Amino acid sequence: MVNGIDRPLDLLNTSKGKEILVQLKNGRQFVGNLLAFDIHINVVLDNAKEIENGEQTTSYGRMFLRGDMIVFISPSSAAN
Amino acid sequence: MVNGIDRPLDLLNTSKGKEILVQLKNGRQFVGNLLAFDIHINVVLDNAKEIENGEQTTSYGRMFLRGDMIVFISPSSAAN
Amino acid sequence: MVNGIDRPLDLLNTSKGKEILVQLKNGRQFVGNLLAFDIHINVVLDNAKEIENGEQTTSYGRMFLRGDMIVFISPSSAAN
Amino acid sequence: MVNGIDRPLDLLNTSKGKEILVQLKNGRQFVGNLLAFDIHINVVLDNAKEIENGEQTTSYGRMFLRGDMIVFISPSSAAN
Amino acid sequence: MVNGIDRPLDLLNTSKGKEILVQLKNGRQFVGNLLAFDIHINVVLDNAKEIENGEQTTSYGRMFLRGDMIVFISPSSAAN
Amino acid sequence: MVNGIDRPLDLLNTSKGKEILVQLKNGRQFVGNLLAFDIHINVVLDNAKEIENGEQTTSYGRMFLRGDMIVFISPSSAAN
Amino acid sequence: MVNGIDRPLDLLNTSKGKEILVQLKNGRQFVGNLLAFDIHINVVLDNAKEIENGEQTTSYGRMFLRGDMIVFISPSSAAN
Repeated sequence: MVNGIDRPLDLLNTSKGKEILVQLKNGRQFVGNLLAFDIHINVVLDNAKEIENGEQTTSYGRMFLRGDMIVFISPSSAAN
Repeated sequence: MVNGIDRPLDLLNTSKGKEILVQLKNGRQFVGNLLAFDIHINVVLDNAKEIENGEQTTSYGRMFLRGDMIVFISPSSAAN
Repeated sequence: MVNGIDRPLDLLNTSKGKEILVQLKNGRQFVGNLLAFDIHINVVLDNAKEIENGEQTTSYGRMFLRGDMIVFISPSSAAN
Repeated sequence: MVNGIDRPLDLLNTSKGKEILVQLKNGRQFVGNLLAFDIHINVVLDNAKEIENGEQTTSYGRMFLRGDMIVFISPSSAAN
Repeated sequence: MVNGIDRPLDLLNTSKGKEILVQLKNGRQFVGNLLAFDIHINVVLDNAKEIENGEQTTSYGRMFLRGDMIVFISPSSAAN
Repeated sequence: MVNGIDRPLDLLNTSKGKEILVQLKNGRQFVGNLLAFDIHINVVLDNAKEIENGEQTTSYGRMFLRGDMIVFISPSSAAN
Repeated sequence: MVNGIDRPLDLLNTSKGKEILVQLKNGRQFVGNLLAFDIHINVVLDNAKEIENGEQTTSYGRMFLRGDMIVFISPSSAAN
């Protein structure tokens, strides 16, 4: 185990309480503070904001995102 | 556990009896009072109304929504 | 448990023998008397009729509808 | 239990040996004599015929239809 | 049980060693001698040939076809 | 059991170490030496090459292909 | 077992800590250092970069990729 990431969910676990970028299958992107996730990759974001053309647009507050809509999650990209 | 949200379904549990916004995979949006949900994210709304271009249009009363059609659920956005 | 709806399927259970509106993923809509349903949300309607542009068109008598094609079910809307 | 239909599959069970209409997700329709079905809604038709624009076209004899392609099954409509 | 077809897979079982027509979800059709199948409706054809516009075109020899791509299988149609 | 193919996976088992043709759902085709497969029809090819318009184009070396993307696998066609 | 690849996941196991190419179903491609994977083929990449028209474009740092979006993974291609 290098870097403390032994299983894929370990990356999500180390991202709890931090901002993440979530890419959906329909092309939409959201950033928000990761509050919770489960084995289906369902996630709950706090202070969720949609990203359109690199800009933050609509704010959603807390948001439950269904895991089967997710393409990728990137913790570090949200900080850019 | 910060903010009382330890697992994703906790957000839905704390939203029972409150208004939520439901975004579907086919692009449609509904708001309504959350009466019930299950592990498939099937939800039942009371006083359900469709949202089109930010306006409430058709009223549906009580509505059963299949979980596999849901992209996200946002409790706070429904209050805007 | 408010309103007797504790789990999503409770709404379908209280709708047995009553008319419901069923919205399918391919955009088609049917109304009919709910005879039976199961945990897959497969439903059987009696006196099923397709709705096109708000008008009842083709009659199908009894109809088995596969649950994985369903977007939402609304009991009260069928009475409008 | 009204009309002898307590669970959705009961409708298919009472239709064995009778003609049914099967609507597929790709828009195609078939009629045929229902020989067998299972919990996946896989069905076997005898004397299967495709319906195009309300007319019977190609005959297929016996046909195995995968359940995950089915939108609805209507026993009475096939008799029209 | 009429005609020896009690369950859907019985039709495939009686077709072993005979020519069948397989219709895929992407619109392609194949004929071939049914060597084997399983509960996922995965099938292996021998002497598989693609059908385009009613004509046999490319020959594939033995072919493993994934069950989730199949719309229907018709044993008798292949003999036409 | 005729030809040593009793179950569909038997065809893949007899193809280990030989060249196979893999047709994907997105229309792409690959040939390669079959190193391994599992019950999900995930496969690993060695010396994998993409086929476009009947010509071998990009070489990928070893490649893991997800089973749910596969339409068919043909062992003998790869030798043509 | 030839080449140490007995099951498909063995290829991923031998690729841990090395650069891999990941092709997604929506046409996007990523390269990155494989940190972790699971039986769903969920993967975590380190130093993930998107590939567009053969060029590395956006950098994402660490990235969780959902397995159901993956078409293929090629370890050796990433080194090209």
